Amino acid sequence: MKHMRPSIALLSVITLVLQAAEPVRPLRGFSAEEARVERQWEEKFRAIPSPENLREYMRRLSARPHHVGSPYDKDNAEWLLAKFKSWGLDAKIEVFDVLFPTPKERAVELVEPTKFTAKLDEPVLAIDPTSDQKSEQLPTYHAYSKDGDITAPLVFVNYGIPSDYEELQRMGISVQGTIVIAKYGQSWRGIKPKLAAEHGAVGCLVYSDPKDDGYVQGEVYPKGPARPSFGAQRGSVMDMPVYPGDPLTPGVGATADAKRLPLDQVQTITKVPVLPISYGDAEPLLKALAGPIAPMAWRGGLPFTYHVGPGPAKVHLRVQSNWDRKPLYNVIVRIPGSKYPDDWVIRGNHHDAWVNGADDPLSGANALMEEGRALGELVKQGWKPKRTIILCLWDGEEPGLLGSTEWGETHADELRRHAVAYINSDSNSRGFFYAQGSHTLENFIGEVTRDITDPETKMPVAKRQRLALLSRSHGEELREARSRADLRIGALGSGSDYTVFLDHLGVASVNLGFGGEDMGGGQYHSIYDDFYYYTHFQDTDFAYGKTLAQTAGTMVMRMADAEVLPFQFSNFTDTIRTYVGELKLLAGTQRSEIEEKNRQIDEGVYEAIADPKKTMMPPAREPVPPYLNFAPLENALDLLTRSTDKYEKALAAAGDRASVAVNAKLIESERRLTDTIGLPNRPWYRHMIYAPGFYTGYGVKTIPGVREAIEQRRWTEAESQIARVSKALESEAALLDSAADLLKL
Amino acid sequence: MKHMRPSIALLSVITLVLQAAEPVRPLRGFSAEEARVERQWEEKFRAIPSPENLREYMRRLSARPHHVGSPYDKDNAEWLLAKFKSWGLDAKIEVFDVLFPTPKERAVELVEPTKFTAKLDEPVLAIDPTSDQKSEQLPTYHAYSKDGDITAPLVFVNYGIPSDYEELQRMGISVQGTIVIAKYGQSWRGIKPKLAAEHGAVGCLVYSDPKDDGYVQGEVYPKGPARPSFGAQRGSVMDMPVYPGDPLTPGVGATADAKRLPLDQVQTITKVPVLPISYGDAEPLLKALAGPIAPMAWRGGLPFTYHVGPGPAKVHLRVQSNWDRKPLYNVIVRIPGSKYPDDWVIRGNHHDAWVNGADDPLSGANALMEEGRALGELVKQGWKPKRTIILCLWDGEEPGLLGSTEWGETHADELRRHAVAYINSDSNSRGFFYAQGSHTLENFIGEVTRDITDPETKMPVAKRQRLALLSRSHGEELREARSRADLRIGALGSGSDYTVFLDHLGVASVNLGFGGEDMGGGQYHSIYDDFYYYTHFQDTDFAYGKTLAQTAGTMVMRMADAEVLPFQFSNFTDTIRTYVGELKLLAGTQRSEIEEKNRQIDEGVYEAIADPKKTMMPPAREPVPPYLNFAPLENALDLLTRSTDKYEKALAAAGDRASVAVNAKLIESERRLTDTIGLPNRPWYRHMIYAPGFYTGYGVKTIPGVREAIEQRRWTEAESQIARVSKALESEAALLDSAADLLKL
Repeated sequence: MKHMRPSIALLSVITLVLQAAEPVRPLRGFSAEEARVERQWEEKFRAIPSPENLREYMRRLSARPHHVGSPYDKDNAEWLLAKFKSWGLDAKIEVFDVLFPTPKERAVELVEPTKFTAKLDEPVLAIDPTSDQKSEQLPTYHAYSKDGDITAPLVFVNYGIPSDYEELQRMGISVQGTIVIAKYGQSWRGIKPKLAAEHGAVGCLVYSDPKDDGYVQGEVYPKGPARPSFGAQRGSVMDMPVYPGDPLTPGVGATADAKRLPLDQVQTITKVPVLPISYGDAEPLLKALAGPIAPMAWRGGLPFTYHVGPGPAKVHLRVQSNWDRKPLYNVIVRIPGSKYPDDWVIRGNHHDAWVNGADDPLSGANALMEEGRALGELVKQGWKPKRTIILCLWDGEEPGLLGSTEWGETHADELRRHAVAYINSDSNSRGFFYAQGSHTLENFIGEVTRDITDPETKMPVAKRQRLALLSRSHGEELREARSRADLRIGALGSGSDYTVFLDHLGVASVNLGFGGEDMGGGQYHSIYDDFYYYTHFQDTDFAYGKTLAQTAGTMVMRMADAEVLPFQFSNFTDTIRTYVGELKLLAGTQRSEIEEKNRQIDEGVYEAIADPKKTMMPPAREPVPPYLNFAPLENALDLLTRSTDKYEKALAAAGDRASVAVNAKLIESERRLTDTIGLPNRPWYRHMIYAPGFYTGYGVKTIPGVREAIEQRRWTEAESQIARVSKALESEAALLDSAADLLKL
Repeated sequence: MKHMRPSIALLSVITLVLQAAEPVRPLRGFSAEEARVERQWEEKFRAIPSPENLREYMRRLSARPHHVGSPYDKDNAEWLLAKFKSWGLDAKIEVFDVLFPTPKERAVELVEPTKFTAKLDEPVLAIDPTSDQKSEQLPTYHAYSKDGDITAPLVFVNYGIPSDYEELQRMGISVQGTIVIAKYGQSWRGIKPKLAAEHGAVGCLVYSDPKDDGYVQGEVYPKGPARPSFGAQRGSVMDMPVYPGDPLTPGVGATADAKRLPLDQVQTITKVPVLPISYGDAEPLLKALAGPIAPMAWRGGLPFTYHVGPGPAKVHLRVQSNWDRKPLYNVIVRIPGSKYPDDWVIRGNHHDAWVNGADDPLSGANALMEEGRALGELVKQGWKPKRTIILCLWDGEEPGLLGSTEWGETHADELRRHAVAYINSDSNSRGFFYAQGSHTLENFIGEVTRDITDPETKMPVAKRQRLALLSRSHGEELREARSRADLRIGALGSGSDYTVFLDHLGVASVNLGFGGEDMGGGQYHSIYDDFYYYTHFQDTDFAYGKTLAQTAGTMVMRMADAEVLPFQFSNFTDTIRTYVGELKLLAGTQRSEIEEKNRQIDEGVYEAIADPKKTMMPPAREPVPPYLNFAPLENALDLLTRSTDKYEKALAAAGDRASVAVNAKLIESERRLTDTIGLPNRPWYRHMIYAPGFYTGYGVKTIPGVREAIEQRRWTEAESQIARVSKALESEAALLDSAADLLKL
């Protein structure tokens, strides 16, 4: 699933010092001798992954459409199983049974003022050999859209995010009873029908505008990698910010005998019907709109003047799905640990796709396969990981993180006891390393990427990353980019299989990959994301696929072999400090902005600037937010800072001595950041520090309980959430204190 | 000529406090009794201008094309003369004889890889009754383009401004021997062929991209006000930042017997041939380009992927002009002063157009006519201005400020002795007041606009302006917008007839108008800027035309009647302080940016971020700029601050008592800011504080000698210019001291 096209500017970036690598650097959690041995095995490992294999895996797995429930999805799972077994690994398929709607009827028609019927079809391209597999392709649709058959005036709502509806309100335009048409982008797609419904719309279309995703970005396929006129983006619109996974079994595994919700009680199906369309199909619809000209920032790349409506364009939208249950085939590979078999290091990437899915997910899945093959080789050569390694090729990620979520829910108790960390990838391309994740892993990620060579520049991945960060930083950020020992990593929102591990189970997680050089995402979730496309326009020689395998595999090995788990808490604490600072700033800025707005309403500013020939209503006066008590959070942070120092000092004094008890504390450290009550209105999400935004979907909200309460003006909730987050941080501090005490024994 | 489409955010804005107008406010330069009388006359004046008259003047003057040398240009001048005479005013026509090339041959053809011949024609529209006057219309061309007939590969250079050529260099693309195609915008058009030639190009095309000037901005004509596919922007490309006016007679009036340069010695004709084209004509050319995809910010609104080239597109460009001399007809109206007849208050707007010119210039010229009629009425009623008023309707503004420049050069000695101030407008539309000008007039402009009512909101123009400023300000700017007694006005660059007065003669000047609500400029310099267009899409009821007449007329009257001229120096000094601060910041920022760039070159940042599949060369290392000695400027500013205080205190103590001697000092105050040597490499420009940028054209460079020397890395020159500016400021301070002394007598 992943985000589309991660731009360099957005990539969260990674660790390590600028100097050339010293010959022997210590490894956190390893004694000097252990480090020497570990490095030897890691070097052997990194010599194994082969671009040719990556290419052949991708060719095989992408040869036919392999969405959930398709024959080739199952076929791929069985082939994967056989492959891992052939490498001497213990592998099995775990099956779940999930709701997966597929389209029965789809129609989008302009019925007034002229007639036009949308094609809703991606044409076969002669040059692209898999684009003609029409009978096996899922048509363009939004999975988990409510069924519906409606005819209503059309309104253009820009990206259909909250600020767009505020602007519409000021323009005096209501979407009540209309079908809205929104551009893809600026939020996860499922947010668009969700907000449309909240504002009274009765239907929703989401299209790829060529400014964001088409010829403005680059030459279109098959001449270039950008989305062509009739390419459309399939995808899930399940309300995953409430809970991901099988809609019928929230919080529990979708096993054969699980208790299931009746369909009409499911909370995560959209409230209005929705379909994705291409810009070829969107053009006549948008062109038929009158009403005010769209605000400048709303206008896209189609060659006419964008209007907002409503009408005279009237649209007929019909969506009807087969609401069937389908099997999921997760491929699970286990390499047992020799010393700490009950500590599990988990590595995953999904294998299901919307269609042929060469980029998404096979450019990540093939790396994971090579990691498995290489680890199998090492085992044959005598390597014995201390901890158990679990490699997972998830099914059903695309419709809603189904495979990982159901597996995580099924094995929740074991995972809470055993899971050390979860390392995820989804797809991969050419360019710069990126990672987001738990900040207790920030230093670890940095250590690993210092040991990986970038295939283009031949410099350490971490160094290239730091130099790239330098090149786009200014002021204080630039100073930090030069001086901070570890580069910062971003926090995880949602959009891939780490979600259940991090947000529901409290397992320290990281999501990683390479990208940012080739224009990625141009065929995202279309029939053209296939072998021809990937091998012509992405990581064509699989050099970065190999590098991904090297990077993720090294992480897995090092995490599995460390005597003391390489969690590091000073970066975590430093990160929490920045979040607390952001929250205080947010509250202050919000207060002063509301005060200023109210003042300008009193001064008559909005009357003065309004053009009487246009409708532009003054914004509504709002009550000035109260001052919030951040002291509990600041006190908890102080406590955490002291405990972090205590732990780090104790660890240094202990000299990476082994201790099962200390490792148990470290494994528990991410769990302590969760809370069984979960977030307000979405108890499935239990992490107090990280969550996908309720109105962003992909985008993270850090300290989400407090941040979203402030953003959504629920002051009492903000204060009670401050108390809960503080409790979690105090609990983390206590854990670190006890770990430090254990180290002193 | 004016800038296109002044956006609200760019409008330089104007004075005065937020409170409702008090019944009797003192007037600077008037005793209480004089102010009472003045206000009575001004109120009578403001009751006179009539929207119906404005409409009829525009209809008559725009009825046929009236560019320099056309029969209707002369006819209009004679009609204007007769009109002013009919209102009882002393009017005459002053004729000059100037070089004005008109097109003989124009051709733009794509010759490779496919054939396409540009239409270079704006089609007749049935609904627009003057669009069919083909035989009288000047075709689309650039006046003062060098003749040429060339065939060369095409390169897309974005806006063709200096930063674009830097980016091209990093992309490894040379324009040597090519024809460049640049978008209109971001600079005055004449900068584009100038820079193209400096970089070795052999020809230049300039087109209106629909993103900036077409359907992305609004519905296209005749459905809406935006530029249609085959609308193109005529205009002058004379190198006006060197000197404006007749190219054959720099610095002297183009009278019949003036000494003229031979054509081949003229410095202000372009060095390469250039033509403007429409986006309809540009599309096949741009589409035929290959090479790298244009940087994101370069891409326009046409529906394909923009490439940079060079080639395979090869273009044939042919430009041939008739290099004839043509007569100019300036209409000059004089209302003699009763008490200080040798003090001249000058008000101007041009009357020539590129074609029918309803918006540009007649929407300003018709206001000036109504001002003349109303002043004539007042004179009949017994009003006797103390000073002489001169109303000017300039010819030949469009090709290069010809009429005003030649008149100013011809009468230079008289003007230096007598000219009090010059008040300019050019065109006018619906919306917010804007003014740029001499900062000694900032307080005066504020005082006047406090007394003018905005026709939409019925609030004082100054109040609406302040509220609009509030609405777009933040932080320190917002606090200042609320608290500063006078709103700031912008400085004058170039683009209209104030240039000779301010920059060459040192006459305090202001340029003013209304706009920012209707999409202005969509038919700028096209055959569609006509009566049908203006009366359907601009100030359709001429309410703001009336307001312009009221505003400018009130300024003229008040300036003509004040006992002590209402120049105010504390705002001027405050403004100079901000400029000195900007220059210091510029030097510091430039130094640290170069240091940082050099450091990143050393660190290998550019190698790290370069994509080996694309060409992106590291920037060149630059020597770190030396620290400059700003002390002379700061000391001069200190002196000026003290002298300003002294003058303002003396004036307050004197209580606006009359003094011919004091007024003479005030008239001289702007002259003191000039310097007979002029700016480096362009001695025609003598003002030490204001000039159009050598590489911006329209855009002002304040303290230009110093600022451009820093920008262009000429450190020695920067220091010598600091000395010259300091001398001017010291001279100004001495003048104010002597004026203060006179007031104490």
